[in-house]
Amino acid sequence: MQFSIIVGQSGGPTSVINASLLGIIDQAKKNNTINHVYGALNGIDGILNHQIIDLLNEDETELALLKTTPSAILGSVRFKLNDFKEDDTIYQEIIKIFTKLNIKAFFYIGGNDSMDTCRKLDDYFKAMHFDCQVIGIPKTIDNDLVAIDHAPGYGSCIKYIATTMAEIYQDIACYKKGRVTIVEIMGRDAGWLTAGSKLASLINNGPDLIYLPERAFDINLFLTKVKAIYQEKGHVLVALSEGIVDEKGKYILSYRNFNNQDDFGHLQLGGVGEVLAEIVNKKLNLPIRSIELNIPQRCSAHLASKTDIDEAYQCGKKALDMALAKKSGVMVTFERVSNNPYQITFSTVYLKDVANKVKKVPSSYISEDGSNITSAFINYALPLIQGEPEFVYVNGLPRFAKIKKTLVDL
Amino acid sequence: MQFSIIVGQSGGPTSVINASLLGIIDQAKKNNTINHVYGALNGIDGILNHQIIDLLNEDETELALLKTTPSAILGSVRFKLNDFKEDDTIYQEIIKIFTKLNIKAFFYIGGNDSMDTCRKLDDYFKAMHFDCQVIGIPKTIDNDLVAIDHAPGYGSCIKYIATTMAEIYQDIACYKKGRVTIVEIMGRDAGWLTAGSKLASLINNGPDLIYLPERAFDINLFLTKVKAIYQEKGHVLVALSEGIVDEKGKYILSYRNFNNQDDFGHLQLGGVGEVLAEIVNKKLNLPIRSIELNIPQRCSAHLASKTDIDEAYQCGKKALDMALAKKSGVMVTFERVSNNPYQITFSTVYLKDVANKVKKVPSSYISEDGSNITSAFINYALPLIQGEPEFVYVNGLPRFAKIKKTLVDL
Repeated sequence: MQFSIIVGQSGGPTSVINASLLGIIDQAKKNNTINHVYGALNGIDGILNHQIIDLLNEDETELALLKTTPSAILGSVRFKLNDFKEDDTIYQEIIKIFTKLNIKAFFYIGGNDSMDTCRKLDDYFKAMHFDCQVIGIPKTIDNDLVAIDHAPGYGSCIKYIATTMAEIYQDIACYKKGRVTIVEIMGRDAGWLTAGSKLASLINNGPDLIYLPERAFDINLFLTKVKAIYQEKGHVLVALSEGIVDEKGKYILSYRNFNNQDDFGHLQLGGVGEVLAEIVNKKLNLPIRSIELNIPQRCSAHLASKTDIDEAYQCGKKALDMALAKKSGVMVTFERVSNNPYQITFSTVYLKDVANKVKKVPSSYISEDGSNITSAFINYALPLIQGEPEFVYVNGLPRFAKIKKTLVDL
Repeated sequence: MQFSIIVGQSGGPTSVINASLLGIIDQAKKNNTINHVYGALNGIDGILNHQIIDLLNEDETELALLKTTPSAILGSVRFKLNDFKEDDTIYQEIIKIFTKLNIKAFFYIGGNDSMDTCRKLDDYFKAMHFDCQVIGIPKTIDNDLVAIDHAPGYGSCIKYIATTMAEIYQDIACYKKGRVTIVEIMGRDAGWLTAGSKLASLINNGPDLIYLPERAFDINLFLTKVKAIYQEKGHVLVALSEGIVDEKGKYILSYRNFNNQDDFGHLQLGGVGEVLAEIVNKKLNLPIRSIELNIPQRCSAHLASKTDIDEAYQCGKKALDMALAKKSGVMVTFERVSNNPYQITFSTVYLKDVANKVKKVPSSYISEDGSNITSAFINYALPLIQGEPEFVYVNGLPRFAKIKKTLVDL
């Protein structure tokens, strides 16, 4: 008997979230019992608003481009499901639509919050004896998901960060007397992305100082180090997480000397990099520059890691296999069985053991004084950035997948 | 009779300034009469401080990597030569060193200011009847050099800007209700780089609004447009030059509502993108984000244009040929003899006709109301970003040229 499946994408986009989608589609095509692979536009929101397309209607050539197309081609959403025990209106609506479309499996590609959505849905389906497998597919540039060696999306992000950092180093090192350059990197609660900047040290000298939220930031120690390095080299390159805090747990961002809250309410533009740059300039009287890598970190598909793309794609395929094997309430995961040669094996983990948990950078990856990253981290991270994808250029510009998005009649 | 030549790099670095250096070296190697190709570390400063290396001593494999190594491998400098009629001490020192090393040609790869340095040196050499050809080799990401179709370095920079802009668009378009995203691009006096963002419109929708310093910026018209586009699409992508000004010639950057001058003297961090983002948020109450592309614009060799690299390399070769043909006081230039197929021919222009002049973006490239870029610009710019170089990755990371920099005994 034939049935349908549905896929959604959720949370902050990455360079490889579309590769996971393609993995599901490709694997589903091999199975004759699956007659529709639905895509929910903007995740759960698309299900509730009947914004659903059939991905089997899309052009093959365009779909193949998904491997090198950044962001979420189905559109993303930040939607927190309420507790169904309090109000199950939304849940009932979902079951109604799934029933109508004969959907027997729901796949959600996302991070922590999305796994929580999956868990709630699975709990409800089980409580209602509704026959639909729920499978979470991991993605997050932040790499803070537990129960997985690393999150798909992370490798591409740090390949971008390491390469860009090395290029910045080439640039800033060309003057005899340069500046203190502070590069602010994403990661509010965990320093995985900032740690990735250390890989630039394999290319040229890379960052001189690296600070993560996992260790208390001491402004005076920082200034002492900056001064000494500048005196020696004539330039300093600092990498830091947007979420660094001092020993009292206070965000360094809040050290800002200018305050535009009176004028703009909640608005606070300019990150911690600027705040520290100003302090360096004021206290040490050194020329400074602040660079925020910003969203190109997560969408620079032209610099994605082939390993990361392949793993994200495999996650999609495995997710389908797991649904067919009647697994539900689980997230696809993998562990590293060997580092040299690098090898991973796939399995599943219960969503309840993943949702709403955060994996921090372990102490062994951070230098004793908290101002740098150890070689143990390099061993962990280097396999994740290997390989360059066949990025498609037309006329000197990238060619991204275009899908028709014809809505299913509901 | 054998002789030597010397090369220096000057001004802000680009992704292809090292390709021009390689062009000179490769061409010099074909000529038996040239026995030393000296490199001045940090330009004129290196000559005066005896920081000179012999590039023929460097490893062939490393030199070959110069084509894909960003920034200035010899080191750069910002050094303004004084008028020799007032004081020729520095000039005499240069002649002394050139005589000692039997240097018969000086090549300077740089922008406007560097061409001025070349001109002054050439004038002095001629006045003193000192036999040394002076050849300027153009480079600047800003594309503001006159008497040349476009500046080497520009094509790679706008390939980066267009690609990044298209990736940012993929990212921001994934939410139903997104933000007003303002991307600030380099270019204080001329909008060439910001105009390059228009090329992203060939990939996906690209920037909705594009503002250059060549046209007066009207804040109210801007807000009206932003509001209308946001209502229609749910997100707005704006590209703007750091140097945009209003009709009174006042920098929009100076509209900032917070002022940290009292605390920090000259220091003003955070660019015009942030200033406008704050105004959009305050006046229209829309969610906003400001992205400053910053120095990755000029050093992202991984996304350089092959056409640009090849042209920069050719400029180096032609420069040597011209010196051997006893030309001096000139800059290498090229004109576009055909756009389809794209073809350029090389010649020279007198330095006095280049130095200290600025080429602005012509009116025909800017839309009538000054908020977008025309297809005439696309025709001009598209050939410049064609082709992807063979960028060398080792272990998933770029491999840049390393040179020994052993100093010549002086």
